Amino acid sequence: MRYKCIISYDGRNYVGFQSQINGIAIQDVIEAKLAVILQRPLKIVMSSRTDAKVHALGQVFHFDIDRQLDLYRFKGSLNSLLPDDIYLKSIEPVDDDFHARYSVKAKKYRYLINTGEHDVFLSGRVYDCYFKLDMAVFRKTAELFLGYHDFGSFNTSTYDEVKDQHRTIYAVDIKNKGDLIIVDIIGDGFLRHMVRMLVGTMIDTARGQKDIADVKRMLTHPDKRYHVYNISPEGLYLLEVYYSQTYPVWLKPSIVNSREM
Amino acid sequence: MRYKCIISYDGRNYVGFQSQINGIAIQDVIEAKLAVILQRPLKIVMSSRTDAKVHALGQVFHFDIDRQLDLYRFKGSLNSLLPDDIYLKSIEPVDDDFHARYSVKAKKYRYLINTGEHDVFLSGRVYDCYFKLDMAVFRKTAELFLGYHDFGSFNTSTYDEVKDQHRTIYAVDIKNKGDLIIVDIIGDGFLRHMVRMLVGTMIDTARGQKDIADVKRMLTHPDKRYHVYNISPEGLYLLEVYYSQTYPVWLKPSIVNSREM
Repeated sequence: MRYKCIISYDGRNYVGFQSQINGIAIQDVIEAKLAVILQRPLKIVMSSRTDAKVHALGQVFHFDIDRQLDLYRFKGSLNSLLPDDIYLKSIEPVDDDFHARYSVKAKKYRYLINTGEHDVFLSGRVYDCYFKLDMAVFRKTAELFLGYHDFGSFNTSTYDEVKDQHRTIYAVDIKNKGDLIIVDIIGDGFLRHMVRMLVGTMIDTARGQKDIADVKRMLTHPDKRYHVYNISPEGLYLLEVYYSQTYPVWLKPSIVNSREM
Repeated sequence: MRYKCIISYDGRNYVGFQSQINGIAIQDVIEAKLAVILQRPLKIVMSSRTDAKVHALGQVFHFDIDRQLDLYRFKGSLNSLLPDDIYLKSIEPVDDDFHARYSVKAKKYRYLINTGEHDVFLSGRVYDCYFKLDMAVFRKTAELFLGYHDFGSFNTSTYDEVKDQHRTIYAVDIKNKGDLIIVDIIGDGFLRHMVRMLVGTMIDTARGQKDIADVKRMLTHPDKRYHVYNISPEGLYLLEVYYSQTYPVWLKPSIVNSREM
Protein backbone atom coordinates (compact mmCIF):
# COMPACT_ATOMS: atom_id res chain seq x y z
CA MET A 1 0.00 0.00 0.00
CA ARG A 2 1.20 3.50 -0.84
CA TYR A 3 0.20 6.44 1.38
CA LYS A 4 0.33 10.14 0.59
CA CYS A 5 0.91 12.49 3.53
CA ILE A 6 0.61 16.27 3.75
CA ILE A 7 2.55 17.99 6.51
CA SER A 8 3.22 21.48 7.78
CA TYR A 9 6.32 22.60 9.60
CA ASP A 10 8.11 25.60 11.02
CA GLY A 11 11.55 25.17 9.50
CA ARG A 12 13.50 27.29 11.95
CA ASN A 13 15.06 24.46 13.90
CA TYR A 14 15.98 22.26 10.94
CA VAL A 15 18.64 22.04 8.23
CA GLY A 16 15.86 21.55 5.67
CA PHE A 17 13.47 18.80 4.74
CA GLN A 18 15.99 16.36 3.28
CA SER A 19 18.43 14.46 5.49
CA GLN A 20 21.89 16.04 5.57
CA ILE A 21 25.10 15.31 7.37
CA ASN A 22 25.21 18.70 9.07
CA GLY A 23 22.20 18.59 11.39
CA ILE A 24 18.67 17.43 11.99
CA ALA A 25 16.37 17.45 8.97
CA ILE A 26 12.59 17.22 9.04
CA GLN A 27 12.87 13.95 7.13
CA ASP A 28 15.01 12.50 9.95
CA VAL A 29 12.38 13.34 12.54
CA ILE A 30 9.50 11.94 10.50
CA GLU A 31 11.31 8.73 9.60
CA ALA A 32 12.33 8.20 13.23
CA LYS A 33 8.75 8.59 14.45
CA LEU A 34 7.33 6.46 11.62
CA ALA A 35 9.76 3.71 12.61
CA VAL A 36 8.33 3.79 16.12
CA ILE A 37 4.72 3.56 14.95
CA LEU A 38 5.22 1.09 12.11
CA GLN A 39 7.82 -0.97 13.98
CA ARG A 40 10.28 -0.97 11.11
CA PRO A 41 12.75 1.37 9.43
CA LEU A 42 11.19 3.19 6.51
CA LYS A 43 12.20 5.74 3.87
CA ILE A 44 9.84 8.47 2.75
CA VAL A 45 9.81 10.13 -0.68
CA MET A 46 9.28 13.89 -0.58
CA SER A 47 7.79 16.16 -3.22
CA SER A 48 10.38 18.90 -2.77
CA ARG A 49 13.47 19.65 -0.84
CA THR A 50 13.08 22.78 1.22
CA ASP A 51 16.18 24.63 2.43
CA ALA A 52 17.26 25.18 6.00
CA LYS A 53 14.80 27.43 7.86
CA VAL A 54 12.21 27.29 5.06
CA HIS A 55 8.66 26.52 6.21
CA ALA A 56 5.83 24.49 4.74
CA LEU A 57 2.08 24.39 4.98
CA GLY A 58 1.62 21.68 2.38
CA GLN A 59 4.75 19.59 1.94
CA VAL A 60 3.91 16.14 0.55
CA PHE A 61 5.64 12.78 0.90
CA HIS A 62 4.69 9.18 0.24
CA PHE A 63 5.76 5.87 1.73
CA ASP A 64 4.98 2.22 1.09
CA ILE A 65 3.96 -0.40 3.60
CA ASP A 66 2.64 -3.93 3.13
CA ARG A 67 -0.47 -3.49 5.22
CA GLN A 68 -3.48 -1.28 5.59
CA LEU A 69 -3.30 1.49 8.19
CA ASP A 70 -6.04 2.80 10.44
CA LEU A 71 -5.69 6.37 9.18
CA TYR A 72 -7.39 8.12 12.07
CA ARG A 73 -5.23 6.34 14.65
CA PHE A 74 -2.12 6.72 12.55
CA LYS A 75 -2.57 10.48 12.33
CA GLY A 76 -3.14 10.83 16.07
CA SER A 77 -0.17 8.59 16.92
CA LEU A 78 2.27 10.30 14.61
CA ASN A 79 1.24 13.79 15.74
CA SER A 80 1.58 12.80 19.38
CA LEU A 81 5.18 11.75 18.69
CA LEU A 82 6.16 14.64 16.42
CA PRO A 83 7.54 17.84 17.97
CA ASP A 84 5.25 20.89 18.05
CA ASP A 85 6.83 22.36 14.91
CA ILE A 86 5.98 19.45 12.60
CA TYR A 87 2.39 18.33 12.02
CA LEU A 88 0.76 15.66 9.87
CA LYS A 89 -2.28 17.33 8.31
CA SER A 90 -3.59 14.39 6.32
CA ILE A 91 -2.84 10.89 5.15
CA GLU A 92 -4.63 8.96 2.41
CA PRO A 93 -4.04 5.79 0.41
CA VAL A 94 -3.03 6.38 -3.21
CA ASP A 95 -2.45 4.25 -6.30
CA ASP A 96 0.97 2.72 -6.75
CA ASP A 97 1.63 4.97 -9.73
CA PHE A 98 1.38 8.07 -7.55
CA HIS A 99 4.82 9.46 -6.79
CA ALA A 100 5.31 12.40 -4.43
CA ARG A 101 8.02 13.89 -6.65
CA TYR A 102 7.46 12.63 -10.21
CA SER A 103 3.69 13.13 -10.24
CA VAL A 104 3.90 16.82 -9.34
CA LYS A 105 2.07 19.11 -11.77
CA ALA A 106 2.74 22.43 -10.05
CA LYS A 107 3.78 23.98 -6.77
CA LYS A 108 2.83 27.11 -4.94
CA TYR A 109 5.32 29.01 -2.79
CA ARG A 110 4.70 32.05 -0.60
CA TYR A 111 7.23 34.67 0.40
CA LEU A 112 6.54 37.10 3.25
CA ILE A 113 8.24 40.51 3.38
CA ASN A 114 7.78 42.69 6.44
CA THR A 115 8.19 46.36 5.53
CA GLY A 116 7.17 47.60 8.96
CA GLU A 117 8.89 47.45 12.31
CA HIS A 118 10.31 44.17 13.54
CA ASP A 119 7.55 41.97 14.99
CA VAL A 120 8.68 39.49 17.64
CA PHE A 121 5.84 37.16 16.65
CA LEU A 122 6.97 37.07 13.02
CA SER A 123 10.60 36.55 13.90
CA GLY A 124 12.07 33.73 11.78
CA ARG A 125 8.96 33.76 9.60
CA VAL A 126 9.38 36.85 7.45
CA TYR A 127 12.13 38.82 5.79
CA ASP A 128 12.46 42.19 7.54
CA CYS A 129 12.96 44.61 4.64
CA TYR A 130 14.25 48.06 5.57
CA PHE A 131 14.47 49.28 1.96
CA LYS A 132 11.87 51.62 0.55
CA LEU A 133 10.10 49.67 -2.22
CA ASP A 134 8.32 51.00 -5.29
CA MET A 135 5.46 48.51 -5.51
CA ALA A 136 4.63 49.37 -9.13
CA VAL A 137 8.16 48.34 -10.12
CA PHE A 138 7.94 45.30 -7.84
CA ARG A 139 4.82 44.12 -9.71
CA LYS A 140 6.25 44.97 -13.11
CA THR A 141 9.28 42.81 -12.36
CA ALA A 142 7.05 39.93 -11.27
CA GLU A 143 5.21 40.16 -14.60
CA LEU A 144 8.46 39.51 -16.48
CA PHE A 145 8.77 36.12 -14.81
CA LEU A 146 5.41 34.85 -15.99
CA GLY A 147 5.39 32.11 -18.60
CA TYR A 148 8.04 29.75 -19.96
CA HIS A 149 11.65 30.90 -19.55
CA ASP A 150 15.15 29.63 -19.07
CA PHE A 151 15.65 30.59 -15.41
CA GLY A 152 19.38 29.92 -15.44
CA SER A 153 20.07 33.35 -13.96
CA PHE A 154 18.00 32.37 -10.93
CA ASN A 155 19.51 29.01 -10.12
CA THR A 156 22.34 27.91 -7.85
CA SER A 157 22.42 24.24 -8.81
CA THR A 158 25.13 23.04 -11.18
CA TYR A 159 24.75 21.86 -14.77
CA ASP A 160 25.41 18.32 -13.61
CA GLU A 161 22.50 18.51 -11.23
CA VAL A 162 19.98 20.25 -13.49
CA LYS A 163 20.47 20.26 -17.26
CA ASP A 164 17.23 21.87 -18.34
CA GLN A 165 16.67 25.18 -16.61
CA HIS A 166 13.39 25.96 -18.36
CA ARG A 167 10.40 26.34 -16.09
CA THR A 168 6.94 27.84 -16.42
CA ILE A 169 5.58 30.36 -13.94
CA TYR A 170 1.79 30.21 -14.11
CA ALA A 171 0.90 33.01 -11.75
CA VAL A 172 2.27 35.52 -9.31
CA ASP A 173 -0.08 36.98 -6.74
CA ILE A 174 1.09 40.02 -4.79
CA LYS A 175 -0.97 41.14 -1.80
CA ASN A 176 -0.48 43.71 0.91
CA LYS A 177 -1.71 43.06 4.41
CA GLY A 178 -0.76 45.85 6.74
CA ASP A 179 3.03 46.11 6.60
CA LEU A 180 3.35 42.65 5.03
CA ILE A 181 3.89 41.98 1.35
CA ILE A 182 2.68 38.49 0.47
CA VAL A 183 4.06 37.06 -2.76
CA ASP A 184 2.54 33.79 -4.00
CA ILE A 185 4.17 32.08 -6.97
CA ILE A 186 2.78 29.08 -8.82
CA GLY A 187 4.98 27.25 -11.29
CA ASP A 188 5.50 23.81 -12.76
CA GLY A 189 8.82 23.54 -10.95
CA PHE A 190 11.52 25.61 -9.32
CA LEU A 191 15.31 25.50 -9.53
CA ARG A 192 17.48 25.69 -6.43
CA HIS A 193 16.92 29.02 -4.62
CA MET A 194 14.81 30.17 -7.56
CA VAL A 195 11.85 31.53 -5.57
CA ARG A 196 14.12 33.49 -3.25
CA MET A 197 16.12 34.83 -6.20
CA LEU A 198 12.97 35.89 -8.07
CA VAL A 199 11.66 37.74 -5.02
CA GLY A 200 15.14 39.13 -4.34
CA THR A 201 15.18 40.50 -7.88
CA MET A 202 11.75 42.10 -7.39
CA ILE A 203 13.18 43.80 -4.31
CA ASP A 204 16.35 44.81 -6.16
CA THR A 205 14.38 46.61 -8.87
CA ALA A 206 11.78 48.03 -6.46
CA ARG A 207 14.57 49.64 -4.43
CA GLY A 208 16.38 50.90 -7.51
CA GLN A 209 19.39 48.55 -7.46
CA LYS A 210 18.52 47.02 -10.85
CA ASP A 211 16.28 48.16 -13.62
CA ILE A 212 13.69 46.35 -15.69
CA ALA A 213 16.07 46.08 -18.65
CA ASP A 214 18.56 44.19 -16.44
CA VAL A 215 15.91 41.67 -15.52
CA LYS A 216 14.86 41.21 -19.14
CA ARG A 217 18.48 40.50 -20.04
CA MET A 218 18.74 37.97 -17.21
CA LEU A 219 15.80 36.11 -18.75
CA THR A 220 16.91 36.32 -22.37
CA HIS A 221 20.59 35.62 -21.65
CA PRO A 222 20.57 33.30 -18.66
CA ASP A 223 23.83 33.33 -16.78
CA LYS A 224 24.67 32.34 -13.22
CA ARG A 225 27.15 35.18 -12.97
CA TYR A 226 24.47 37.81 -12.56
CA HIS A 227 24.60 38.98 -9.02
CA VAL A 228 21.24 38.01 -7.59
CA TYR A 229 20.03 38.84 -4.14
CA ASN A 230 19.36 35.46 -2.52
CA ILE A 231 16.96 36.65 0.09
CA SER A 232 16.55 35.07 3.56
CA PRO A 233 15.00 31.57 3.74
CA GLU A 234 12.94 32.59 6.77
CA GLY A 235 10.23 34.28 4.68
CA LEU A 236 9.67 31.27 2.41
CA TYR A 237 6.79 28.78 2.65
CA LEU A 238 5.94 25.77 0.50
CA LEU A 239 2.18 26.29 0.40
CA GLU A 240 0.81 23.57 -1.83
CA VAL A 241 1.84 20.81 -4.19
CA TYR A 242 -0.57 20.08 -7.04
CA TYR A 243 -0.91 16.60 -8.54
CA SER A 244 -3.75 17.31 -10.94
CA GLN A 245 -4.69 20.10 -13.31
CA THR A 246 -6.96 21.61 -10.66
CA TYR A 247 -4.33 24.14 -9.61
CA PRO A 248 -5.17 27.72 -10.52
CA VAL A 249 -3.94 28.34 -14.04
CA TRP A 250 -5.29 31.49 -15.62
CA LEU A 251 -6.07 31.59 -19.33
CA LYS A 252 -2.73 33.20 -19.80
CA PRO A 253 -0.08 33.56 -17.13
CA SER A 254 -1.18 36.47 -15.04
CA ILE A 255 -0.46 38.75 -12.18
CA VAL A 256 -3.24 38.75 -9.65
CA ASN A 257 -3.53 42.01 -7.83
CA SER A 258 -5.38 41.03 -4.74
CA ARG A 259 -6.57 43.86 -2.62
CA GLU A 260 -6.66 41.90 0.59
CA MET A 261 -6.06 38.45 2.07
CA MET B 1 15.43 62.09 33.52
CA ARG B 2 12.84 59.33 33.63
CA TYR B 3 12.05 57.35 30.48
CA LYS B 4 9.03 55.16 29.75
CA CYS B 5 9.57 52.22 27.41
CA ILE B 6 7.04 49.93 25.73
CA ILE B 7 8.28 46.54 24.61
CA SER B 8 6.96 43.39 22.99
CA TYR B 9 8.32 39.91 23.48
CA ASP B 10 7.74 36.28 22.68
CA GLY B 11 8.00 34.74 26.14
CA ARG B 12 8.75 31.19 25.09
CA ASN B 13 12.45 31.24 25.88
CA TYR B 14 12.24 33.05 29.20
CA VAL B 15 11.35 32.34 32.82
CA GLY B 16 9.15 35.44 32.80
CA PHE B 17 9.72 39.17 32.80
CA GLN B 18 11.12 39.53 36.29
CA SER B 19 14.62 38.28 37.17
CA GLN B 20 14.59 34.89 38.86
CA ILE B 21 17.23 32.52 40.12
CA ASN B 22 16.09 29.67 37.86
CA GLY B 23 16.86 30.98 34.38
CA ILE B 24 17.03 33.93 32.03
CA ALA B 25 14.32 36.56 32.46
CA ILE B 26 13.43 39.26 29.96
CA GLN B 27 14.46 41.84 32.57
CA ASP B 28 17.96 40.31 32.67
CA VAL B 29 18.38 40.65 28.92
CA ILE B 30 17.11 44.24 28.82
CA GLU B 31 19.24 45.36 31.77
CA ALA B 32 22.33 43.73 30.26
CA LYS B 33 21.84 45.49 26.93
CA LEU B 34 20.97 48.82 28.59
CA ALA B 35 24.22 48.58 30.55
CA VAL B 36 26.12 48.26 27.27
CA ILE B 37 24.43 51.29 25.70
CA LEU B 38 24.35 53.52 28.77
CA GLN B 39 27.76 52.40 30.01
CA ARG B 40 26.57 51.74 33.52
CA PRO B 41 24.55 49.14 35.45
CA LEU B 42 20.90 50.08 35.67
CA LYS B 43 17.68 48.69 37.16
CA ILE B 44 14.39 48.96 35.32
CA VAL B 45 10.96 49.15 36.96
CA MET B 46 8.31 47.06 35.19
CA SER B 47 4.54 47.56 35.11
CA SER B 48 3.71 43.89 35.59
CA ARG B 49 5.41 40.63 36.12
CA THR B 50 4.53 38.15 33.41
CA ASP B 51 4.98 34.43 34.05
CA ALA B 52 7.31 32.08 32.26
CA LYS B 53 6.31 31.66 28.59
CA VAL B 54 3.78 34.51 28.73
CA HIS B 55 4.04 37.02 25.86
CA ALA B 56 3.61 40.77 25.65
CA LEU B 57 2.76 43.31 23.01
CA GLY B 58 2.71 46.27 25.38
CA GLN B 59 4.77 45.63 28.50
CA VAL B 60 5.94 48.89 30.08
CA PHE B 61 8.97 49.74 32.18
CA HIS B 62 10.71 52.92 33.27
CA PHE B 63 14.27 53.80 34.19
CA ASP B 64 16.13 56.89 35.38
CA ILE B 65 19.30 58.36 34.00
CA ASP B 66 21.03 61.70 34.69
CA ARG B 67 21.23 62.81 31.09
CA GLN B 68 19.07 63.29 28.03
CA LEU B 69 18.97 60.49 25.47
CA ASP B 70 18.79 60.74 21.70
CA LEU B 71 15.61 58.65 21.48
CA TYR B 72 15.87 57.67 17.83
CA ARG B 73 19.43 56.42 18.21
CA PHE B 74 18.67 54.80 21.55
CA LYS B 75 15.82 52.78 20.04
CA GLY B 76 17.93 51.62 17.12
CA SER B 77 20.88 50.72 19.33
CA LEU B 78 18.88 48.78 21.87
CA ASN B 79 16.97 46.84 19.19
CA SER B 80 20.18 45.95 17.39
CA LEU B 81 21.47 44.42 20.64
CA LEU B 82 18.27 42.71 21.76
CA PRO B 83 17.52 39.18 20.53
CA ASP B 84 14.83 38.76 17.86
CA ASP B 85 12.19 37.85 20.42
CA ILE B 86 12.36 41.11 22.43
CA TYR B 87 11.70 44.47 20.78
CA LEU B 88 11.60 48.06 22.04
CA LYS B 89 8.53 49.61 20.43
CA SER B 90 8.82 53.09 21.90
CA ILE B 91 10.65 55.24 24.41
CA GLU B 92 9.60 58.66 25.68
CA PRO B 93 10.61 61.00 28.50
CA VAL B 94 8.09 61.20 31.33
CA ASP B 95 7.62 63.25 34.49
CA ASP B 96 9.36 62.06 37.62
CA ASP B 97 6.02 61.23 39.20
CA PHE B 98 5.30 58.66 36.51
CA HIS B 99 5.85 55.15 37.84
CA ALA B 100 5.56 52.09 35.57
CA ARG B 101 3.86 50.07 38.32
CA TYR B 102 2.17 52.50 40.70
CA SER B 103 0.71 54.78 38.03
CA VAL B 104 -1.15 51.97 36.27
CA LYS B 105 -4.88 52.60 35.82
CA ALA B 106 -5.78 49.42 33.97
CA LYS B 107 -4.35 46.54 31.98
CA LYS B 108 -5.54 44.55 29.03
CA TYR B 109 -4.68 40.89 28.61
CA ARG B 110 -5.45 38.60 25.69
CA TYR B 111 -5.84 34.85 25.81
CA LEU B 112 -5.80 32.76 22.61
CA ILE B 113 -7.54 29.39 22.47
CA ASN B 114 -7.12 27.22 19.38
CA THR B 115 -10.11 24.92 18.96
CA GLY B 116 -8.95 23.61 15.59
CA GLU B 117 -6.11 21.34 14.61
CA HIS B 118 -2.63 22.04 15.93
CA ASP B 119 -0.96 24.81 13.91
CA VAL B 120 2.84 24.69 13.82
CA PHE B 121 2.93 28.47 13.37
CA LEU B 122 0.89 29.04 16.54
CA SER B 123 2.88 26.59 18.60
CA GLY B 124 3.84 28.13 21.95
CA ARG B 125 1.44 31.01 21.29
CA VAL B 126 -1.99 29.50 21.86
CA TYR B 127 -3.65 26.94 24.09
CA ASP B 128 -4.68 23.95 21.97
CA CYS B 129 -8.11 23.08 23.34
CA TYR B 130 -9.47 19.68 22.37
CA PHE B 131 -12.66 20.01 24.43
CA LYS B 132 -15.96 20.78 22.78
CA LEU B 133 -17.00 24.20 24.09
CA ASP B 134 -20.47 25.66 24.44
CA MET B 135 -19.75 29.27 23.54
CA ALA B 136 -23.00 30.57 25.03
CA VAL B 137 -21.95 29.16 28.41
CA PHE B 138 -18.42 30.46 27.85
CA ARG B 139 -19.78 34.01 27.41
CA LYS B 140 -22.22 33.67 30.29
CA THR B 141 -19.35 32.72 32.59
CA ALA B 142 -17.30 35.69 31.41
CA GLU B 143 -20.21 37.99 32.27
CA LEU B 144 -20.09 36.85 35.89
CA PHE B 145 -16.57 38.21 36.24
CA LEU B 146 -17.47 41.74 35.20
CA GLY B 147 -17.34 44.43 37.87
CA TYR B 148 -15.89 44.62 41.37
CA HIS B 149 -15.35 41.26 43.11
CA ASP B 150 -13.15 39.51 45.60
CA PHE B 151 -11.21 37.27 43.19
CA GLY B 152 -9.68 35.17 45.98
CA SER B 153 -10.81 31.97 44.24
CA PHE B 154 -8.72 32.93 41.22
CA ASN B 155 -5.44 33.74 42.90
CA THR B 156 -2.35 31.72 43.70
CA SER B 157 -0.46 34.35 45.69
CA THR B 158 -0.45 34.10 49.47
CA TYR B 159 -2.17 36.36 51.97
CA ASP B 160 1.22 37.78 52.95
CA GLU B 161 1.84 38.82 49.37
CA VAL B 162 -1.59 40.22 48.56
CA LYS B 163 -3.97 41.20 51.31
CA ASP B 164 -6.76 42.78 49.29
CA GLN B 165 -8.01 40.44 46.61
CA HIS B 166 -10.66 42.80 45.26
CA ARG B 167 -10.27 43.78 41.64
CA THR B 168 -12.53 45.33 39.00
CA ILE B 169 -12.98 43.79 35.58
CA TYR B 170 -14.08 46.53 33.19
CA ALA B 171 -14.66 44.52 30.06
CA VAL B 172 -14.37 41.11 28.50
CA ASP B 173 -14.32 40.89 24.73
CA ILE B 174 -14.75 37.45 23.15
CA LYS B 175 -14.12 37.10 19.44
CA ASN B 176 -13.92 34.15 17.09
CA LYS B 177 -11.50 34.20 14.19
CA GLY B 178 -11.55 30.93 12.34
CA ASP B 179 -10.74 28.24 14.89
CA LEU B 180 -9.32 30.76 17.36
CA ILE B 181 -11.17 32.12 20.35
CA ILE B 182 -9.73 35.48 21.35
CA VAL B 183 -10.51 36.60 24.89
CA ASP B 184 -9.55 40.16 25.85
CA ILE B 185 -9.90 41.18 29.48
CA ILE B 186 -9.48 44.70 30.83
CA GLY B 187 -9.26 45.24 34.56
CA ASP B 188 -7.73 47.59 37.10
CA GLY B 189 -5.39 44.86 38.23
CA PHE B 190 -4.92 41.12 38.25
CA LEU B 191 -3.87 38.66 40.95
CA ARG B 192 -1.29 35.98 40.30
CA HIS B 193 -2.51 33.58 37.57
CA MET B 194 -5.89 35.33 37.66
CA VAL B 195 -6.35 35.78 33.89
CA ARG B 196 -5.46 32.16 33.21
CA MET B 197 -7.77 30.98 36.00
CA LEU B 198 -10.67 33.12 34.74
CA VAL B 199 -10.28 31.76 31.21
CA GLY B 200 -9.76 28.25 32.58
CA THR B 201 -13.05 28.60 34.45
CA MET B 202 -14.82 29.74 31.26
CA ILE B 203 -13.49 26.59 29.59
CA ASP B 204 -14.49 24.44 32.57
CA THR B 205 -18.11 25.59 32.38
CA ALA B 206 -18.22 25.60 28.56
CA ARG B 207 -17.14 21.96 28.52
CA GLY B 208 -19.55 20.99 31.28
CA GLN B 209 -17.06 20.41 34.10
CA LYS B 210 -18.52 23.18 36.29
CA ASP B 211 -21.83 24.97 36.21
CA ILE B 212 -22.72 28.62 36.46
CA ALA B 213 -23.83 28.21 40.07
CA ASP B 214 -20.34 26.94 40.98
CA VAL B 215 -18.77 30.04 39.51
CA LYS B 216 -21.19 32.33 41.33
CA ARG B 217 -20.25 30.62 44.59
CA MET B 218 -16.56 31.07 43.83
CA LEU B 219 -17.17 34.81 43.51
CA THR B 220 -19.41 35.21 46.55
CA HIS B 221 -17.37 32.87 48.77
CA PRO B 222 -13.78 33.32 47.66
CA ASP B 223 -11.60 30.40 48.60
CA LYS B 224 -8.30 29.18 47.19
CA ARG B 225 -9.37 25.59 47.72
CA TYR B 226 -11.66 25.60 44.69
CA HIS B 227 -10.04 23.51 42.06
CA VAL B 228 -9.39 25.93 39.22
CA TYR B 229 -8.00 25.00 35.84
CA ASN B 230 -4.79 27.05 35.56
CA ILE B 231 -4.57 27.02 31.82
CA SER B 232 -1.28 27.10 29.84
CA PRO B 233 0.78 30.33 29.94
CA GLU B 234 1.50 30.02 26.21
CA GLY B 235 -1.83 31.53 25.16
CA LEU B 236 -1.46 34.64 27.34
CA TYR B 237 -0.43 38.12 26.12
CA LEU B 238 -0.07 41.37 28.05
CA LEU B 239 -1.57 43.64 25.40
CA GLU B 240 -1.61 47.10 26.90
CA VAL B 241 -1.02 49.00 30.12
CA TYR B 242 -3.14 52.11 30.61
CA TYR B 243 -1.87 55.11 32.59
CA SER B 244 -4.79 57.43 32.01
CA GLN B 245 -8.54 57.11 31.98
CA THR B 246 -8.52 56.76 28.23
CA TYR B 247 -8.77 53.00 28.39
CA PRO B 248 -12.06 51.63 27.12
CA VAL B 249 -14.48 51.63 30.04
CA TRP B 250 -18.06 51.12 29.02
CA LEU B 251 -20.84 52.87 30.92
CA LYS B 252 -21.28 49.72 32.86
CA PRO B 253 -18.92 46.77 32.80
CA SER B 254 -19.80 44.93 29.67
CA ILE B 255 -19.26 41.96 27.47
CA VAL B 256 -18.37 42.99 23.97
CA ASN B 257 -19.44 40.46 21.42
CA SER B 258 -17.27 41.33 18.50
CA ARG B 259 -18.16 39.67 15.26
CA GLU B 260 -14.69 39.89 13.85
CA MET B 261 -11.15 41.03 14.61
